[in-house]
Amino acid sequence: MTETRWLSPAEARAWRALQSFRTPLAAALNRQLMTDSALSSADYEVLVVLSETPGGSLRAGELGRATGWEKSRLSHHIKRMEARRLVERQDCLTDGRGLLVAITDQGRRAIEDAAPGHVQAVRKFVIDILTPEQLEVLAEVGEAVGASLTAENCQAAASDVGDCQLDEQAS
Amino acid sequence: MTETRWLSPAEARAWRALQSFRTPLAAALNRQLMTDSALSSADYEVLVVLSETPGGSLRAGELGRATGWEKSRLSHHIKRMEARRLVERQDCLTDGRGLLVAITDQGRRAIEDAAPGHVQAVRKFVIDILTPEQLEVLAEVGEAVGASLTAENCQAAASDVGDCQLDEQAS
Repeated sequence: MTETRWLSPAEARAWRALQSFRTPLAAALNRQLMTDSALSSADYEVLVVLSETPGGSLRAGELGRATGWEKSRLSHHIKRMEARRLVERQDCLTDGRGLLVAITDQGRRAIEDAAPGHVQAVRKFVIDILTPEQLEVLAEVGEAVGASLTAENCQAAASDVGDCQLDEQAS
Repeated sequence: MTETRWLSPAEARAWRALQSFRTPLAAALNRQLMTDSALSSADYEVLVVLSETPGGSLRAGELGRATGWEKSRLSHHIKRMEARRLVERQDCLTDGRGLLVAITDQGRRAIEDAAPGHVQAVRKFVIDILTPEQLEVLAEVGEAVGASLTAENCQAAASDVGDCQLDEQAS
């Protein structure tokens, strides 16, 4: 049995600081979106990914990897967004590789309407209170942590979100 | 109407980096806990707060502020944790200020058993891949963002999580 390497005071401070804003930040951004637009943070996240993809559609598995969501959450959420006509599911018959999720015109209008207020909130809570140097380190830290999670998530995604599995799950 | 101040490339990079690891990090830590212990991340978060509080109990409203959760999420989660005997709800009859949530002996054992594996995962995904300088800036950034959210959250919490409201909600 290996000895547990507990966090040093400096490490614990950084971890606590990161933890301390994760949930409140998500809650504050979600509240802003729900108050000022017809979208939740989860809707926004899906629509950003799709709207920035050439053609506006992605395979379910790719959308799962882009959002980092697990299969059941993604399935249920896409189904609800489809009912509100923000996205549509399209069979990808040409190559037999399964389901595509596509942003609709209504989805594009919704995210275009929501974006200015959302950016303003992101500035207020995060960007505008940090120095350029802090932003630079935050980018480096985020990219390093993101990379450390990639192998982990690809592994989990492979067993969890298949490109062709969402259709059955969510229908 | 004010012009939207869209993010500059450096700001967008920092924001994307922060966003890119939030959900996958939460998912990876939750998976580790669920695999190696009997706790979810949400259980762990509640038990950490209570176990570090002298006496092991907090008013529901204080627990809501410490976790940053909204009332309905907190109510439902505490109810589920109580059913699993990880916490218990106690009336605070002495001062009429309502419900206390207390960690049980079983809750203490659960978090003591889960902590070593959780710390190892926190090291693997975040702490051990960052330099001491990055950890220092991360702490500063987290504390600044946390402070920017405090007013926002206190306001939301005041209308959302009352000290005495959880009992009715969750019973």
